[in-house]
Amino acid sequence: MTIILDTAALRAIVADVGVDQLMDEMIERLRDRFEAFDPKTTESIQRTGFAYQQPSLGLIEWMPTMQSGERVSIKTVGYHPANPTLRSLPSVLATTSLYDTTTGELLALTDSTFLTALRTGAASAIATDLLAPRDVETVGIIGCGAQAVTQLHAISRVRRFTRVLAYDADPSVAATLLERLPSSVGHRVTVDVVAAEDRAALLGSVDVLCTVTSVDPGEDAVIADGDHKRSLHVNAVGADFPGKLELPDSLIDRAAVVPDVVEQCLVEGESQRLTEDELAADLATLCAEPTTAQALQQRLTVFDSTGWALEDMVAAELALEHAARLGVGVDAELQLIGDDPYDPYRAVGG
Amino acid sequence: MTIILDTAALRAIVADVGVDQLMDEMIERLRDRFEAFDPKTTESIQRTGFAYQQPSLGLIEWMPTMQSGERVSIKTVGYHPANPTLRSLPSVLATTSLYDTTTGELLALTDSTFLTALRTGAASAIATDLLAPRDVETVGIIGCGAQAVTQLHAISRVRRFTRVLAYDADPSVAATLLERLPSSVGHRVTVDVVAAEDRAALLGSVDVLCTVTSVDPGEDAVIADGDHKRSLHVNAVGADFPGKLELPDSLIDRAAVVPDVVEQCLVEGESQRLTEDELAADLATLCAEPTTAQALQQRLTVFDSTGWALEDMVAAELALEHAARLGVGVDAELQLIGDDPYDPYRAVGG
Repeated sequence: MTIILDTAALRAIVADVGVDQLMDEMIERLRDRFEAFDPKTTESIQRTGFAYQQPSLGLIEWMPTMQSGERVSIKTVGYHPANPTLRSLPSVLATTSLYDTTTGELLALTDSTFLTALRTGAASAIATDLLAPRDVETVGIIGCGAQAVTQLHAISRVRRFTRVLAYDADPSVAATLLERLPSSVGHRVTVDVVAAEDRAALLGSVDVLCTVTSVDPGEDAVIADGDHKRSLHVNAVGADFPGKLELPDSLIDRAAVVPDVVEQCLVEGESQRLTEDELAADLATLCAEPTTAQALQQRLTVFDSTGWALEDMVAAELALEHAARLGVGVDAELQLIGDDPYDPYRAVGG
Repeated sequence: MTIILDTAALRAIVADVGVDQLMDEMIERLRDRFEAFDPKTTESIQRTGFAYQQPSLGLIEWMPTMQSGERVSIKTVGYHPANPTLRSLPSVLATTSLYDTTTGELLALTDSTFLTALRTGAASAIATDLLAPRDVETVGIIGCGAQAVTQLHAISRVRRFTRVLAYDADPSVAATLLERLPSSVGHRVTVDVVAAEDRAALLGSVDVLCTVTSVDPGEDAVIADGDHKRSLHVNAVGADFPGKLELPDSLIDRAAVVPDVVEQCLVEGESQRLTEDELAADLATLCAEPTTAQALQQRLTVFDSTGWALEDMVAAELALEHAARLGVGVDAELQLIGDDPYDPYRAVGG
């Protein structure tokens, strides 16, 4: 039997738990998992996929990870940046499947569009908590789509900022950011929309910056380099494609760059212009060694967030636990397991 | 909206279409698709996965293929050879997901345990039709599990054999083979179970041989080399793992070996002991050039069937067309597509 967490199931979980509590749980689970991370028992296979230009620029890729002796998790994610404007659909659409490594059975299929936004925010919150100074007043956000909402929400769970400087290539998207924030954060912050010509000044005014754009590969950095606070922390979230870079080279060159997944960041992340020995410790290592992180808090730091398959497994597990507790989700009989494992036709009544 | 083809949907399709007609359609669809195959528009990514020894020998892998500008198909398949004996589950359990390359949406999730058996049989039928002589009286089968049923059924749709010589390492599995065959073939053939000590003689008596075993990597060939009819055709189906080989080296060396997917066969198939220039044309090429195949009919031929992701896409499409016609399958709202593509929380009611 396969449990399917559909939209109704996720709505029931959110209604019961609330988005603040859910984000806190996501952050805590991820932090615990990063801290305990052991590559001998948690194995990921580099994500791969199909990228294409027709009918419009897009990518469908899969992110597999295995908890040895327990389960395999595969998130399949579509990235189609024209979705919001052309089709009123999120640019990132995703589902996660969990498989039992004893039998190979599909245990669960969950929506992961929401869970991807949740876990991506949570990862930035963990990085921000480790790498940004204690006092954060102003957070800058470049790109104000769906991921911006969970970035700001997640960071609000670890830092009590009161001001957001927001820029989006489409000013009408930036204009609605505040109303899309959960009330716990929306009620306590002001959101100032920054005009294109003031973007450079934004860098100088923020304590934490998140870049969460759909910039095309090969385009200019989404913000120009310039003066900034000595301890600025940047969560660079949008780069997840070879050739796609959000930050200026010069900023990356003087920053301590903390990757989520080293090999992946070197191919798809901001780190693709760096070599492995130019990187700081990865996020999991910093979770296990917080003093190493503390030493970076007064420096310019960049969290290179390309998305880790392990995060998707943890997010799916969290949702499934709540679903089991609440008795929500749809049971589906898949994989035609009949009475006789040697008789494929009897299982279908043939 | 995602359509889920669960067990009930597949049962409804089989009840309506019948297994003979369904197998004929599968063979015809596959043959057409192979004949028209164009690597420029049908792109596959080499399958990969997690292989492990604990809790027992197993493999979970994914087989992606893309019809450019239309859809991506990913079959995820578990291979756990201890399933039948330890857990009364099929050794192969699979599901296939189809994604829209315009939006990235998950269009469909179908059971593929049954469909894998169906398409694997159909591929062997196509190879047998191309490579075996017109008159086939006796078919040998080594390994009498679930895949053996669809091998014999599929081949019965292209050759009117009347006798089966069956061997399985577990004689009780071979003993039930006849009763597991669909009536169209079960009623017209005799199945003689061959004892372990008579396996060598089997090779000399058959016109077509199918090897569909769960032999472990590194084990001996499942049948010893020996005398056989000059025009013997072998469907080597069970080898699908590096180091896993079903046929003796000497037999492979003198055969015309027809791969399904060249690169994959060189890594996982019977062809892994050959180089690319030692292979005959692949199955798709032979479908497009039947005279090339005809020239091989009087020779020893081996179809090296490792399983092609394209076959899984075609099988899923066939099932989905029948499901749409019959109005079966379950609609699931997944991927949390809300009113506002920029608002992940509104979509979950947060």
